[in-house]
Amino acid sequence: MRIERIIENVCHERPLIHHITNYVTANDCANIVLACGGSPIMADDVAEVEEMTSLSKALVLNLGTLNQRTIESMLLAGKKANGIGIPVILDPVGVGASTLRNETTFRLLDEISFAVIRGNVSEMKMIGLRQAHGCGVDASVGDVVNELNLDEMVDFAKRLSESLGAVIVMTGAIDIVGSRDEAFVIRNGHGSMAYITGTGCMLSSVIATFVGANLDTLPLAAAVATALMGRCGEVAHEKMQASFLGYSSMKLYLMDAMSQVHQDHMKGGLNIERRG
Amino acid sequence: MRIERIIENVCHERPLIHHITNYVTANDCANIVLACGGSPIMADDVAEVEEMTSLSKALVLNLGTLNQRTIESMLLAGKKANGIGIPVILDPVGVGASTLRNETTFRLLDEISFAVIRGNVSEMKMIGLRQAHGCGVDASVGDVVNELNLDEMVDFAKRLSESLGAVIVMTGAIDIVGSRDEAFVIRNGHGSMAYITGTGCMLSSVIATFVGANLDTLPLAAAVATALMGRCGEVAHEKMQASFLGYSSMKLYLMDAMSQVHQDHMKGGLNIERRG
Amino acid sequence: MRIERIIENVCHERPLIHHITNYVTANDCANIVLACGGSPIMADDVAEVEEMTSLSKALVLNLGTLNQRTIESMLLAGKKANGIGIPVILDPVGVGASTLRNETTFRLLDEISFAVIRGNVSEMKMIGLRQAHGCGVDASVGDVVNELNLDEMVDFAKRLSESLGAVIVMTGAIDIVGSRDEAFVIRNGHGSMAYITGTGCMLSSVIATFVGANLDTLPLAAAVATALMGRCGEVAHEKMQASFLGYSSMKLYLMDAMSQVHQDHMKGGLNIERRG
Repeated sequence: MRIERIIENVCHERPLIHHITNYVTANDCANIVLACGGSPIMADDVAEVEEMTSLSKALVLNLGTLNQRTIESMLLAGKKANGIGIPVILDPVGVGASTLRNETTFRLLDEISFAVIRGNVSEMKMIGLRQAHGCGVDASVGDVVNELNLDEMVDFAKRLSESLGAVIVMTGAIDIVGSRDEAFVIRNGHGSMAYITGTGCMLSSVIATFVGANLDTLPLAAAVATALMGRCGEVAHEKMQASFLGYSSMKLYLMDAMSQVHQDHMKGGLNIERRG
Repeated sequence: MRIERIIENVCHERPLIHHITNYVTANDCANIVLACGGSPIMADDVAEVEEMTSLSKALVLNLGTLNQRTIESMLLAGKKANGIGIPVILDPVGVGASTLRNETTFRLLDEISFAVIRGNVSEMKMIGLRQAHGCGVDASVGDVVNELNLDEMVDFAKRLSESLGAVIVMTGAIDIVGSRDEAFVIRNGHGSMAYITGTGCMLSSVIATFVGANLDTLPLAAAVATALMGRCGEVAHEKMQASFLGYSSMKLYLMDAMSQVHQDHMKGGLNIERRG
Repeated sequence: MRIERIIENVCHERPLIHHITNYVTANDCANIVLACGGSPIMADDVAEVEEMTSLSKALVLNLGTLNQRTIESMLLAGKKANGIGIPVILDPVGVGASTLRNETTFRLLDEISFAVIRGNVSEMKMIGLRQAHGCGVDASVGDVVNELNLDEMVDFAKRLSESLGAVIVMTGAIDIVGSRDEAFVIRNGHGSMAYITGTGCMLSSVIATFVGANLDTLPLAAAVATALMGRCGEVAHEKMQASFLGYSSMKLYLMDAMSQVHQDHMKGGLNIERRG
């Protein structure tokens, strides 16, 4: 079965994932990459990022606490990754919140070819607005994804993917993975994940790990990673509720669940719907 | 009841709290802001801190791992916060330990108007020594707060508050919140909190969250935040002891407790004494 | 008994340990220093690192997320530490992976006198290759330490120690602590520790804490710290298995165990073999 194979590929390959990322969630991203079967590197000095990228199977560019120094490093590392043909994953944290984030995101999109872009609905709309013809981002594109506007949002993700040449992972109450030719709708996760900082960053790192070990099936690999992260949130929320604990325990259980990715209660709970 | 209302305001408003802070405890600060009902942003590049502050309900300046680059960002963000009228909270981590920390603290105090300054007794004495007339910091101001010197320390906090125009939160075995006209003495917390890194930073972030949603009652809002943090420490210490676990579990339980702020065992345990 | 005394010295002295370290594991390093009985400072601005070092009992230089700015700070802090006679611990994270890491490591080795260098086998081989005569690093020095090549690897550690004038802590399935005149072979730890980010960084911080409070017996103090870290991993792995949890819980239990260093199940489980 294809999903099973995608998970096995990660464990067999144990891909090295280079991150240029923020200092708020870097530790969680490193631990969740280890938990799901990869191996993380975090290095951001302009003098070494190209070499670090050369050793890796995928590169994550996360804008969380970007600064002038690390923006230059992101550009260099991204170009190197393009040169050697490994996938680059963009997490445009907070695009829309500042001119620096907008300009950096657009400069990265102009100069680097991304394999996957992951963000929430408002981040993706911000990116879509700037593409030619706005990729269908107009009054009709909602701020959240729900069953009522789902078809439209899937369509938006596919058009954005075609416009940018990257798989789009748009996360929310329902997650959408869109490529030019196909899309996946994922109904895993729990609203309480919003009370844990870094679930988005962690997902981007897990996607990089899955994509880095499954180059021939990027959209489905990204969808499996996204569904797994949501499944971890479900398991963690149940455990937290059962134990009368709080969100810090929930985060612990979420990360624990990711290290049990091979167990039936994890794989069996993935809710991925394929759409043509 | 006023305390109940202060807590409710946080949950209703869900204030966005901009942090320019250190990389050691940034993750814990983000998670505890989420746990107590706020929403954190961490961003420190000079090109975007003013915009980020503009979106926020309060700003935290934490000197933990300050550097030349982030000091400039702190000055810009602080002035912007003053301009738009949102409260700025200063955590002068380690002031007294280096010339850089002293000069930065004093420059920030000169150029920015703070709503709250939170530190331990020695940090507050260091600041007091520099104010005109030393604010009563002399041989008679102790290095710890205890029942014997409590009146004197409350008086010091009130005079320091008057001199700086900021609510003073001085933490120790007994916590004191002092403003010009009133003071609160808080007898929550547990000595073992000293074995968890970042409890001070986390408290400053919780204070910012409470103050950001309660602009009309800053001193009491700061006192409630301080008492809640102490109460979390008490609950966590009990759980750690009961389970024969260590300080890492205690930290987990402390952060869990903050997400249960609405429950009776939390609110009912706050020990805040008002002094005129 | 000497081991008991070494542990007690840490608790009595509560040494302050200055770190110039990476943003990925800084929080864990701070917490584990507190757990084992020390007190951490993290500060990296060039304008204050000498003062911070002056207040401390040991200095850790960790290359994890090094950058041009912090490299200068490391050089300054290291020289200051040498000047005032406190031990400096080097963790050459990822040496061999980039030119920047190699050049920085060698520059630090040239300009600073280290008390302890801790790394895995490949990092230590990389350093050994550069020393005069390669310190015996040739085809015969393995990439892992096992019972078959143990004598040879102990010999390598001792020669490297003599060449560099620093105690060598080489970690792997079996850990080796080598000085010119003696060596310790440590059979604690569990392979699953590789699934937790930062166990190496944390060990370097614990070594600094133990060495900072035991200046007259550096090699044994480093060996006790190393064995304790491994023992924490064993205890944590057992607890994780017993509870059907994952690696995030294992990390929690590992750090919890470090705060129980005085209990018999910890001290009694240390497996340190002295070799002449």
